[in-house]
Amino acid sequence: MPAIRYEVLGIGNAIVDVIARTEEDFLLKQGMNKGGMALIDEPRAEAIYKAMGPAVETSGGSAANTIVGVASLGVRSAFIGKVKDDLLGRAFSHDIRAAGVAFTTTPAARGPSTARCYVLVTPDGERTMNTYLGAAQNLHPSDIDADLVAGSAILYLEGYLWDPKDAKDAFLKAAKIAHQAERTVALSLSDAFCVDRWRDEFLHLMRSRTVDLIFANEAELSSLYQTADFDTAVAVLRKDIGTAVITRSEKGCIVIGPDGTEAVSAFPVERVVDTTGAGDLFAAGFLCGLARGADDRTCGRLGALAAGEIIQHLGARPETSLQDLARQNGLLD
Amino acid sequence: MPAIRYEVLGIGNAIVDVIARTEEDFLLKQGMNKGGMALIDEPRAEAIYKAMGPAVETSGGSAANTIVGVASLGVRSAFIGKVKDDLLGRAFSHDIRAAGVAFTTTPAARGPSTARCYVLVTPDGERTMNTYLGAAQNLHPSDIDADLVAGSAILYLEGYLWDPKDAKDAFLKAAKIAHQAERTVALSLSDAFCVDRWRDEFLHLMRSRTVDLIFANEAELSSLYQTADFDTAVAVLRKDIGTAVITRSEKGCIVIGPDGTEAVSAFPVERVVDTTGAGDLFAAGFLCGLARGADDRTCGRLGALAAGEIIQHLGARPETSLQDLARQNGLLD
Repeated sequence: MPAIRYEVLGIGNAIVDVIARTEEDFLLKQGMNKGGMALIDEPRAEAIYKAMGPAVETSGGSAANTIVGVASLGVRSAFIGKVKDDLLGRAFSHDIRAAGVAFTTTPAARGPSTARCYVLVTPDGERTMNTYLGAAQNLHPSDIDADLVAGSAILYLEGYLWDPKDAKDAFLKAAKIAHQAERTVALSLSDAFCVDRWRDEFLHLMRSRTVDLIFANEAELSSLYQTADFDTAVAVLRKDIGTAVITRSEKGCIVIGPDGTEAVSAFPVERVVDTTGAGDLFAAGFLCGLARGADDRTCGRLGALAAGEIIQHLGARPETSLQDLARQNGLLD
Repeated sequence: MPAIRYEVLGIGNAIVDVIARTEEDFLLKQGMNKGGMALIDEPRAEAIYKAMGPAVETSGGSAANTIVGVASLGVRSAFIGKVKDDLLGRAFSHDIRAAGVAFTTTPAARGPSTARCYVLVTPDGERTMNTYLGAAQNLHPSDIDADLVAGSAILYLEGYLWDPKDAKDAFLKAAKIAHQAERTVALSLSDAFCVDRWRDEFLHLMRSRTVDLIFANEAELSSLYQTADFDTAVAVLRKDIGTAVITRSEKGCIVIGPDGTEAVSAFPVERVVDTTGAGDLFAAGFLCGLARGADDRTCGRLGALAAGEIIQHLGARPETSLQDLARQNGLLD
C-alpha cells in the first residue's frame, strides 16, 4: 500500500462561479427552480448572462470548494478536475493552488471553454444555480492519477460528476483504486435534481459499497427515497450505507453511523448573505475531522463551523483561515 | 449644438480587477508602494499573480467605476474604453451594461488580452494596485464617437489615460469636441505616482482650460505642486482651475470653486473593508450632483455617500442602489 501523501483528495467539476444579486422576480421570469442547480447549454448560458445583473467571478465547483475548505483547515489536500487553458481556467487553477491545494490535472488546449456557474443570489441569501459544464464535462478516466488516488487517505466525489459520461467513468475508476488501497470513499449527493436524474445509480453506489460515506441535505434525501417523511428516509438510509451525514440548514446536521446517531446544531451566524457553498464547506469541516480521527460529534461541529463562515459573505471560498477559526472554537489543536 | 443624450460620459482604461486579501509582508517582499498604482508588464503580472493568494475577479477601471456609480444614482451615462474580445473582456462589457451604462466601444479582436489590475487588500482595508494595461492601452482616437461626446453634458476623464500614447490623443480629441459643444470637462488626477509621471502636462491641461474641473486626493495634490503643505497647494490650485474637489479620506472633502470654498465631512461608516474605488465613487456622487445642478455642498455630500458605500465591501462597484441610498439620506428626490 503506497504511503499517504494527501489526507483528502477531491474530484469534481472545475467551475468558475459568476455571482450576481437578483430579485425573486428574475427567477420566475427565467423559469428557474429556486435553490436548485440546472444544467444549461451554451446558448442558454449566453441568454441568462445577458439578462442578469453585474457579476463577480470567483472560483467555484462543489468538490473544489470543499477541498479548498479542507486546505484552509490545515489538512493536506489535492484536487482533480478539468478546465480549459483560457483566462477563467487560469483563474481557477491559480485560486485553488494559492489556497494550498495540489492541482495538476492537465487543462484542455481546445474545445469548450472553462465551465461557468451563473449563481443568482436573492435577498434572502438563497442561491439558484445554472451551470454550463464546458471543459469540465471532458474530465476523462485518463485524468485519474492512480498514485495520487492510492496515496490519499480519503477520496471525496461530488454527485454532479454523474452528469457527464466520461466523468462518471473517471469517478468509478478512482473509487476502485481507492478501495484497492483500503482508502475511504465519500460522496456528496450534490443536489435534489441531480439525485432525481441519477437516483437508481446513486442507490447502487451506496448498496454496492462503492462509497462508504454520503453527504446529503434534506431535499436530496427526500429525492433519493421519494418520500417527504424524514424519519422514514433515515430508517432506509441506515441500511443502505455505512455512514451518512444529513445537513438540515439552520437545524444543524445528523450523523448516522455504525455506532448510532448524533445530532449537531448549526453554528450561530449574524446574517446570512449568500448560502452558496454551505453544503460544500460543511463537508470540508466534516472531512477534516474524519482525516484527523475525530468523533462524529466533532466532525459535525467542524462542518457547522465551516458552513457558518461561508454563508456570511458572497462566494463559496473561505475569506478567513478556517484553521484559526476552528482553533478559536476549540475544535482543532 | 446636439441634444443631450447622456448626462455623464466617462472615458478610461477598461480593466478587470483581480482582488486578493494579503498581509503587509507581501507588499514589502514584492517591493510595492502601499496605496499606490504601479504599471506592470506581462511577465511581472504573471509573477505577481503566481505569488498572490486566491482572488476574486470583478470589473474595475477608475472612470468605469465612476460611471457605474453615476448610473446607480439614476443618472443617464455612457462609457468609452477598450477591452479585448476574451472572457474577461466580455465580463467587463456585460457588467457595465448590466449596470445601465451605454457602452459601445468595439472590442479588440487580437493583440494583448483585457487589462487586469491586481488589487492587494491589506487588513487595514488599504489597497495596493498593479496594473497590466493589455488591450486598454490600444484605446485610439478613432474610438472616440464625436456625436456621443457632443451629446453628453459632462465628459469625465481619468488621468491614467495619460499613460498609453494613443489614449492620450483620444483624451485630447474628446476634450476638444466636448468644449466645442459647450460641455463640461472633468479630470481625475488618478494617483500620486501618475501625477508624478505627468505633472507638467496635467498642469498644462488645467491652465489651458482643457479641463474645467479636477478631482484629486491630498497625495495627488501634494505630488502636483511638490509640496507637503496643504494650504500652499490649495492657494496655487485656486488660480490654476475653475473648480477643484479635494478628497481627504475620513476628513471628507473640500470643494474650491469660483464662489468660494466648501468643506464637506465624510459619510460615517461602520468598518472599512476595502478602500478600492473610494475616489472613483466619490467622483460619481459629485458628478451626479453636478449633472442635476446641485450646489457644491450637496455634490460633496453625494460624493461622500457613494464613497462610504464602496469602502464597506470588497470591490469598486456598488452592491446596492446608490439612488435609493441617496433618497434615504435626503440627497436626491
